[in-house]
Amino acid sequence: MHMSRTRVAVAGASGYAGGEVLRLLLGHPEVEIGALTGASNAGERLGVLQPHLLPLADRVLEPTTVDVLAGHDVVFLGLPHGQSGALAEELSQRDADVVVIDCGADFRLEDAAAWEQFYGSAHAGTWPYGLPELPGNRDALRGARRVAVPGCYPTVSSLALAPAVAAGLVQPDVVIVAASGTSGAGKAVKPHLLGSEVMGNTSAYGVGGVHRHTPEITQNLGRLHADGPEALKVSFTPLLVPMPRGILATCSAPLAGDLTAGEAHAVYTEAYADEPFVHVLPAGVWPQTKAVLGSNAVHLQVTVDEAAGRLVAVGAVDNLAKGTAGAAVQCMNLALGLPESTGLSTVGMAP
Amino acid sequence: MHMSRTRVAVAGASGYAGGEVLRLLLGHPEVEIGALTGASNAGERLGVLQPHLLPLADRVLEPTTVDVLAGHDVVFLGLPHGQSGALAEELSQRDADVVVIDCGADFRLEDAAAWEQFYGSAHAGTWPYGLPELPGNRDALRGARRVAVPGCYPTVSSLALAPAVAAGLVQPDVVIVAASGTSGAGKAVKPHLLGSEVMGNTSAYGVGGVHRHTPEITQNLGRLHADGPEALKVSFTPLLVPMPRGILATCSAPLAGDLTAGEAHAVYTEAYADEPFVHVLPAGVWPQTKAVLGSNAVHLQVTVDEAAGRLVAVGAVDNLAKGTAGAAVQCMNLALGLPESTGLSTVGMAP
Amino acid sequence: MHMSRTRVAVAGASGYAGGEVLRLLLGHPEVEIGALTGASNAGERLGVLQPHLLPLADRVLEPTTVDVLAGHDVVFLGLPHGQSGALAEELSQRDADVVVIDCGADFRLEDAAAWEQFYGSAHAGTWPYGLPELPGNRDALRGARRVAVPGCYPTVSSLALAPAVAAGLVQPDVVIVAASGTSGAGKAVKPHLLGSEVMGNTSAYGVGGVHRHTPEITQNLGRLHADGPEALKVSFTPLLVPMPRGILATCSAPLAGDLTAGEAHAVYTEAYADEPFVHVLPAGVWPQTKAVLGSNAVHLQVTVDEAAGRLVAVGAVDNLAKGTAGAAVQCMNLALGLPESTGLSTVGMAP
Amino acid sequence: MHMSRTRVAVAGASGYAGGEVLRLLLGHPEVEIGALTGASNAGERLGVLQPHLLPLADRVLEPTTVDVLAGHDVVFLGLPHGQSGALAEELSQRDADVVVIDCGADFRLEDAAAWEQFYGSAHAGTWPYGLPELPGNRDALRGARRVAVPGCYPTVSSLALAPAVAAGLVQPDVVIVAASGTSGAGKAVKPHLLGSEVMGNTSAYGVGGVHRHTPEITQNLGRLHADGPEALKVSFTPLLVPMPRGILATCSAPLAGDLTAGEAHAVYTEAYADEPFVHVLPAGVWPQTKAVLGSNAVHLQVTVDEAAGRLVAVGAVDNLAKGTAGAAVQCMNLALGLPESTGLSTVGMAP
Repeated sequence: MHMSRTRVAVAGASGYAGGEVLRLLLGHPEVEIGALTGASNAGERLGVLQPHLLPLADRVLEPTTVDVLAGHDVVFLGLPHGQSGALAEELSQRDADVVVIDCGADFRLEDAAAWEQFYGSAHAGTWPYGLPELPGNRDALRGARRVAVPGCYPTVSSLALAPAVAAGLVQPDVVIVAASGTSGAGKAVKPHLLGSEVMGNTSAYGVGGVHRHTPEITQNLGRLHADGPEALKVSFTPLLVPMPRGILATCSAPLAGDLTAGEAHAVYTEAYADEPFVHVLPAGVWPQTKAVLGSNAVHLQVTVDEAAGRLVAVGAVDNLAKGTAGAAVQCMNLALGLPESTGLSTVGMAP
Repeated sequence: MHMSRTRVAVAGASGYAGGEVLRLLLGHPEVEIGALTGASNAGERLGVLQPHLLPLADRVLEPTTVDVLAGHDVVFLGLPHGQSGALAEELSQRDADVVVIDCGADFRLEDAAAWEQFYGSAHAGTWPYGLPELPGNRDALRGARRVAVPGCYPTVSSLALAPAVAAGLVQPDVVIVAASGTSGAGKAVKPHLLGSEVMGNTSAYGVGGVHRHTPEITQNLGRLHADGPEALKVSFTPLLVPMPRGILATCSAPLAGDLTAGEAHAVYTEAYADEPFVHVLPAGVWPQTKAVLGSNAVHLQVTVDEAAGRLVAVGAVDNLAKGTAGAAVQCMNLALGLPESTGLSTVGMAP
Repeated sequence: MHMSRTRVAVAGASGYAGGEVLRLLLGHPEVEIGALTGASNAGERLGVLQPHLLPLADRVLEPTTVDVLAGHDVVFLGLPHGQSGALAEELSQRDADVVVIDCGADFRLEDAAAWEQFYGSAHAGTWPYGLPELPGNRDALRGARRVAVPGCYPTVSSLALAPAVAAGLVQPDVVIVAASGTSGAGKAVKPHLLGSEVMGNTSAYGVGGVHRHTPEITQNLGRLHADGPEALKVSFTPLLVPMPRGILATCSAPLAGDLTAGEAHAVYTEAYADEPFVHVLPAGVWPQTKAVLGSNAVHLQVTVDEAAGRLVAVGAVDNLAKGTAGAAVQCMNLALGLPESTGLSTVGMAP
Repeated sequence: MHMSRTRVAVAGASGYAGGEVLRLLLGHPEVEIGALTGASNAGERLGVLQPHLLPLADRVLEPTTVDVLAGHDVVFLGLPHGQSGALAEELSQRDADVVVIDCGADFRLEDAAAWEQFYGSAHAGTWPYGLPELPGNRDALRGARRVAVPGCYPTVSSLALAPAVAAGLVQPDVVIVAASGTSGAGKAVKPHLLGSEVMGNTSAYGVGGVHRHTPEITQNLGRLHADGPEALKVSFTPLLVPMPRGILATCSAPLAGDLTAGEAHAVYTEAYADEPFVHVLPAGVWPQTKAVLGSNAVHLQVTVDEAAGRLVAVGAVDNLAKGTAGAAVQCMNLALGLPESTGLSTVGMAP
């Protein structure tokens, strides 16, 4: 029994990331939900903006200011690029122990040049990277006061390729094609995201290595490769598919040497044996996004295409759950010293 | 702290109703999941049949027999029509205290003639009806050893019209058009339920009062009307819409006298003020199925169309959750004397 | 062989109505596509705005002005409310014979008070109403120089109820619940129309008789009823369902006297026997929107619910095709003296 | 003006391929639709089986026999594997000039060993391959009496990579990930194809080079590569995405030398400059499946990912139209000496 529950604020509570953080926090036994803030939506009721969060229906969004967000143990940020750094700094001046968990991209990259190339602005810095399942990350997240939540594509793509890259099973020349539901684009009202446009439609975008998640994937996998990040080439193509949630990433690379499907499966199974949220499916069963909807689980499968000389791995994740808000809550648990799985589930919602 | 957890079996664990019961039970703090059975799927792993239920992935379905199901405190039945009665009887001979909760239709109707007309077989009997929110039902469910879980359409249609009928606001001549996701039809592999057929398509079926849920709606509302069931006319048309889950019911009836929208809203709000799962939305906010997905909540709204002289009420429910499995768990809680909301949520999954 | 083809302009060519007019005109043997105009999109290429219209990919949108639109035989207008009247007037001053076909609402209603109540502005007037299948309309459309294309909901709802109302089979108290795909809301970028919001979701809107198509339905059916428009009560509820196109309207009314399903079916079949685009399905087959996608057909079915004492009719239409652009082309054919079906089809695209 | 129209029969008229052939033939000015046959559906009305084909609603399916199919100028076959060869042989004995167009796989592959490996049965032979846009194919199709319609994935994948492979822009090591709508799986009633399963879901299948379309892609591209088929490695992964129609193929290969995106685009544009149905989009515009729905068009785009050292090409096709039935009609036109585009369109149906 805790003397008092952790008091949590969410900035950007009207968006998809903020809404999913709240959905998960409503089932978290150790937190109390404090201030909820928005920008253009400040003053509106959450019951209108996020009608699925019934227990919070009467909450009114406040403006996203330090005064509103100060006084909480944990602050989740779901803000546009460039706003998180200054806000976190000011919050720490009020309370040095505050945990700030940023669902945005500002602090994910270590390479300032890559940041500037892909985001077109000055690099803000680097915070502990919230993918505890990659080697070395978990320790940095325990007790952290800052967390950069990974991008949704990098989460599933990195987990799907990490065992192969780390074990040297493949050449450092990976190809990733990842199909995402539309919520990955956020709640921005753009014509190509209208239901009339996306239903019945699949499209590619950010083709040719220009998507902002490319350097993040390179950073994650490059660190694992024996020859370092410079050796790693990543071809990443995102697809928009007609579903609200979920990412399915198809990842492959040329084999570095002889390898059977069984051996690849064994390497993957071993790599994630102790992970509560990463599950390598039994041989022959392939991931589907629906099996992970709403859950913090990542489903993986791997095989070897002998004729093509490639290892092929497929991963499924809910972009809003483990791909964003679930990772954020998982990292909060690590930061606070709670059991890592508190308030999180591996049960998806299907059909 | 309980000395021991309730041991629960699920017959029909490979179907949609059984899968959803299991999804909810995996989050229920007081139960232990025992035997899982199937018919043609006996011998198969749940990890293949229901890959979203990751914690149960290694479970193997057993055949649906009394020997397998005996020895549990609660048995959920998700079986084809006509099988539940004999099975429940045999289970009670083994253990008089066993709670049997039938997700099928066998024991929902009181009127044997209506049963025979709509189902074409002999009436099996009547069990306590698992919609505690209708007057008189909750008491019969407390400590019950048998529960007939309501149909999905009757759940939302009855709740959407009950306050108006009970308060005499409308004439007993109701029109219900209810749009349902495809999981309401179960996992039966029929050509018209193929994804290629249902995506991008809306159709009507069972038109003209022939759908089997019609007499169940009549039974629920007829009991509430001052002039009794005979006075009540129900026109019910179900629609199949391209989504996996959810029902939106549009219900209307001619006004019995002068009534404003505000008065109607007040009657509804008052009627459900103490209900944990039935929520009348603020005036001007209309239900949408997405807000209740996966939750046990029912969202309602009501207004008055002065020009047409009708009260119009709209309700949203997740057909698999509160519409089937959530009601089943809610009734299990009542039967066992647990708090009614244990393991159930009013938080939906959106977007 | 014609000496010269009809020269056609489309104002609002970047929207859904304009795009569908162009899709149909590209298959029309008697027209030549002239100026295409837009408002905020002027200067953009149609290949980007409407990539499905490949033969027009290199066309550039011009601004919507009289100078641009003048000099065509036919001008289709897909504009916001309030703009069509002045534009048509100016075009006629340039060329008295120009045919102006308005896909908007400005000239649909005869009742100025109804217009003002539902649209909140001054009534612009009334043009020949482009639903030739209703009694009296076709003659007014032959050779017309102005056409008001009907609303999508009124088209299918009126056709589904007209035979019953005209033959006095029902009491003048109709209930319509119509499920529409999202393109009915146009290309407006509003949050609730985002793919993430609409996929997996069904919602009701405009409940209680406040939708602007209500008076149009009343106008169409009131004219057919023996007791006139004043006697007719219309309860209309639109639903938004997760598909891009299509409307399924479920319509019912209390029986005026004894009637069998067979008699109702015979009345409907007879009523539309000579219509090329309105098809009463064989008894027992119910309409589905997918069967009419892209086509100019309306599928209807009717039955009698004896227990409820109601006639129930269901109609399916493609809201963009026969519900808007198909009707516009059909009316152009009538206006120009071409065979009414020229360039139009009763073949849908499924699955 | 033709003296008489070509008389056409369709075997397998209740399936998706057969239905789409009929949809296109209904708009073809030179054909008369003769016998329609089915297997288990023989005796049923097309109005029930394919309600979108309204002009054929009263047609009754006959059994698929030589007696029924004989006497037509052209016979389209949409049959299970292994049935087409004997049927074609018998038809030719009745009428040596009959054109048989097989929508199935039996006669697509030249390599008997590849056939046996992937299909598990004896190789039936090889017919002219119905993808006229690949070098050398069109001449073989002119006046042909047999046509093997290509698979849907091979159509778009081969067209997306052919210019790069033929021009030696890439190394012979291609990776294809292709997302398909569900109609590609046909009308087979399998649990994983139910709407409840596929909506909101993306999954991979046939991973690791085991999908039957793999050798067909290898055959098409291997022929174009300077070093011949043996040099070519193809990694092909199909995805099932929640839409009824359409394929989007993302294809890439390592660059063979220096190449800019502009140079790649120029090569592609030049390669298809004279093709009526293959359209390379303007630079910066990426294909989407919705733009080609119902049309015979293939939309392509290509770029270079310098950091990854790969050429990336994306193609969109309607799997049932140009991916099956459209190609079949296009090949019929070639076989009969009609203009190749007769009855076919490059206009898609959107939104």
